[in-house]
Amino acid sequence: MADKADRVKARLPRGLVDRHPADIRAVDEMVAKIRAIYELYGFEPVETPIIEYTDALGKFLPDQDRPNEGVFSFQDDDEQWLSLRYDLTAPLARFVAENFERLPKPYRSYRAGWVFRNEKPGPGRFRQFMQVDADTVGAPSVAADAEMCMMMADVMEALGIKRGDYVIRVNNRKVLDGVLEAIGLGGEENAGRRLTVLRAIDKLDRLGPEGVRELLGKGRLDESGDFTRGAGLDEEQIAQILTVILPDIGPIDGHASADRQRNYLDRLFAIISNSPTGDAGVRELQEIMGLVLDAGYGGKPPRIVVDPSVVRGLEYYTGPVFEAELLAEIPNEEGQIVRFGSVGGGGRYDGLVSRFRGEPVPATGFSIGVSRLMTALKNLGKLETAETIAPVVVLAMDKDTESLGRYQRLVAELRNAGIRAEMYLGGGGMKAQMKYADRRGSPCVVIQGGDEREKGEVQIKDLEEGKRLSEQIESNVEWRESRPAQFSVPESEMVAAVKRVLEAQRQERAG
Amino acid sequence: MADKADRVKARLPRGLVDRHPADIRAVDEMVAKIRAIYELYGFEPVETPIIEYTDALGKFLPDQDRPNEGVFSFQDDDEQWLSLRYDLTAPLARFVAENFERLPKPYRSYRAGWVFRNEKPGPGRFRQFMQVDADTVGAPSVAADAEMCMMMADVMEALGIKRGDYVIRVNNRKVLDGVLEAIGLGGEENAGRRLTVLRAIDKLDRLGPEGVRELLGKGRLDESGDFTRGAGLDEEQIAQILTVILPDIGPIDGHASADRQRNYLDRLFAIISNSPTGDAGVRELQEIMGLVLDAGYGGKPPRIVVDPSVVRGLEYYTGPVFEAELLAEIPNEEGQIVRFGSVGGGGRYDGLVSRFRGEPVPATGFSIGVSRLMTALKNLGKLETAETIAPVVVLAMDKDTESLGRYQRLVAELRNAGIRAEMYLGGGGMKAQMKYADRRGSPCVVIQGGDEREKGEVQIKDLEEGKRLSEQIESNVEWRESRPAQFSVPESEMVAAVKRVLEAQRQERAG
Repeated sequence: MADKADRVKARLPRGLVDRHPADIRAVDEMVAKIRAIYELYGFEPVETPIIEYTDALGKFLPDQDRPNEGVFSFQDDDEQWLSLRYDLTAPLARFVAENFERLPKPYRSYRAGWVFRNEKPGPGRFRQFMQVDADTVGAPSVAADAEMCMMMADVMEALGIKRGDYVIRVNNRKVLDGVLEAIGLGGEENAGRRLTVLRAIDKLDRLGPEGVRELLGKGRLDESGDFTRGAGLDEEQIAQILTVILPDIGPIDGHASADRQRNYLDRLFAIISNSPTGDAGVRELQEIMGLVLDAGYGGKPPRIVVDPSVVRGLEYYTGPVFEAELLAEIPNEEGQIVRFGSVGGGGRYDGLVSRFRGEPVPATGFSIGVSRLMTALKNLGKLETAETIAPVVVLAMDKDTESLGRYQRLVAELRNAGIRAEMYLGGGGMKAQMKYADRRGSPCVVIQGGDEREKGEVQIKDLEEGKRLSEQIESNVEWRESRPAQFSVPESEMVAAVKRVLEAQRQERAG
Repeated sequence: MADKADRVKARLPRGLVDRHPADIRAVDEMVAKIRAIYELYGFEPVETPIIEYTDALGKFLPDQDRPNEGVFSFQDDDEQWLSLRYDLTAPLARFVAENFERLPKPYRSYRAGWVFRNEKPGPGRFRQFMQVDADTVGAPSVAADAEMCMMMADVMEALGIKRGDYVIRVNNRKVLDGVLEAIGLGGEENAGRRLTVLRAIDKLDRLGPEGVRELLGKGRLDESGDFTRGAGLDEEQIAQILTVILPDIGPIDGHASADRQRNYLDRLFAIISNSPTGDAGVRELQEIMGLVLDAGYGGKPPRIVVDPSVVRGLEYYTGPVFEAELLAEIPNEEGQIVRFGSVGGGGRYDGLVSRFRGEPVPATGFSIGVSRLMTALKNLGKLETAETIAPVVVLAMDKDTESLGRYQRLVAELRNAGIRAEMYLGGGGMKAQMKYADRRGSPCVVIQGGDEREKGEVQIKDLEEGKRLSEQIESNVEWRESRPAQFSVPESEMVAAVKRVLEAQRQERAG
């Protein structure tokens, strides 16, 4: 026991949270459903460690202004820098490069795991969260990107999210690169400005068109009075970017009217006509949507749509990018109704494995933010998990070794019948023990004092029926037939009697 | 693509490993079985983050000669020290202290997760490994320790380890403390020497009695020529310690002959007669064994035995300590037959929650080293996992968008019937695609070129039967009736035909 002065304070660093039973069980069930879809698509589980060499992970996080910003890093005994992984894609690239010869190509794999971001403080900003990824490495064709989008639609539906309550948005970094080239921001010398433009577009959801317009121009003063310098584009350049990312014709889902589509694509081709990159990007988008429709993923409400404002923050994407968005309006943790937004995303990262190798290795993948998706489903009231019954508590009426051994034997009998059960192990008498069973939410307790032992009996106390009866008496509600809240049975019939109590409670809950 | 000079080397830091499909599936199944037992015993899942404040975790690792030795640590933005957890017990103590008022007492919880040790290099020394723990906090009685031992016996058997192939060894730190007190090593001024003695005893398994004798005396010169300074005890002191830890009567399991037990306990009581701590320790051991026998965990071969040489390395233990040991002789990774040893352990840590609070909070727990146990079961040939069938591959014979869309539709039909399936997404022709299906271990491939499409058919090629037929021809083995290795069916019958192939292969594997 620590003196007050020596006592360590029990607290967690900001952005880190403990996980409680309902959340753990819900995430386990969600991950199992996601894995089942990934397996059905022929992906194999592969997992990498949480710690990697810093240089192997590379630096691809958005808004990363200083070295190591955003990543937890430390030095090994030999002074080499190690980092906690910030996603599951960079470690996969290292794994594939290291095991290249022995892997089948294309290499289809999936993984679930914790990732870490050394974020600035803020509400809802977690520094440890779980992702579940699937990746296809060694597939150059956009058919692999189309497959990712279709698989993510299947995942959303497997999680119980109705068609129309989610959408997979697709874009192509080459389209954005083409636009930037077309307005004179091509070349190595403009790399920094291009990044500023992409980050501005990435904030469309949060800041709206006016905010993005300011960030593309001189800059933006936010509510707190902080000024963010803009990309410094002129009116004409800004207008061309906004034409592309805000086509003003709704999502291009292959079911939008032919006119609207043609109109949008014409404008896009006009803007990027002198950019081979942009041209290739638009053609790839068309091919993806063609594959999606041919494979039977059309129909209304749309599952997969083109959305030219999708950017995705990570710097390693080179082609198609996608995002899974929940469309339902969901109360957030503070009870405000909000559009929940992105619960996962991904894209093509043709350069990531090549960093390690002397040959091009095309790759594409998708990452689901499980912690975030769980919050959404919880707030939507769609998080149904299998019912877990609290344990039956065998009270420790006598505390001599022989009696405790006998109670343990009763507990073992219940467990052997598949019933969760435990002997009370704390201090205190009957009252403390009953209070404990109540806090655990136990369905019933088993009692054997000296009298019952002599008669070879146990008493069973049904805590749910007991609670109902006392509420009935207090509130004078209509009487209904009750079962006995407490009764004795021979020790040999204990298991059968407990089973009857559990079954009666189950029927009551069901009806 | 990186130039040779710029290329990053794809490699993992020492002591960290990637996990492959068979291991991931095996660990998942093992953890599910362990969790099922913990749930049956009434424990609830609770998980803490991987990063904690360094001071909240405390420093309890064995062989930790410098500050932070053994732990990965780094500073937060506000310069506070953070560490990766080195076990799941220290974080649980922080969690319980932080949420003390709202938790039921005793608080029974379990968790599975990765822990990290910044170990010195060496074969088989991993710096990230998985533990699955159960803990009871707020239970002062050794009945809680006895329950841990019985639960661990149940876990071993749920994992398919036969009675007699494992044993749970129990000791009590108080017995060792009593012995040390009795031979004059009590008091704060001898704390360092006591630690040296405990570490020496902890090496009994690895070094044998002679090695321990040297480490208790002047010191020991190992094979590499390194000298480890000993505890500097005299002959008489060493003899008394060895009498306790090597009772020379086999394990004390309650079924050992009454004479042998009495003999051992008499010697123990004689040595520690002037130590109230030691006396209490022996009495607690007797009570634990009494509870275990009364609860029906006696019998031969023994499941739970007293073993006075069990120490457990972590410094936070204060009373009973236990260890799950595999007794079977198992080939190790190098093929040598070895006694595998400990696959988990735990004990009472009454001081760990109290570090945070102004009151005593008794606690006991058990931790299973899942990664280590998996290696043991694998080497024992006891790692049976549910069979996973590799995906059916639909070949991409034509690569225009329309054909690819049609192949995707075929794949979707197979998946809708619950069959793992994928479209080939790589480059290359028929030969490359067949080679891919072979490397994946696919049961069959589906082929539709122009001819088949015109006829509205698909070809199905049974890869297992094809392999068997060609082996039969090569080796001239006895002919047996074969099914066709390749055949055509109407597109509408594809799913039914693939199901027939899978069923025929299943029957063949079953014998």
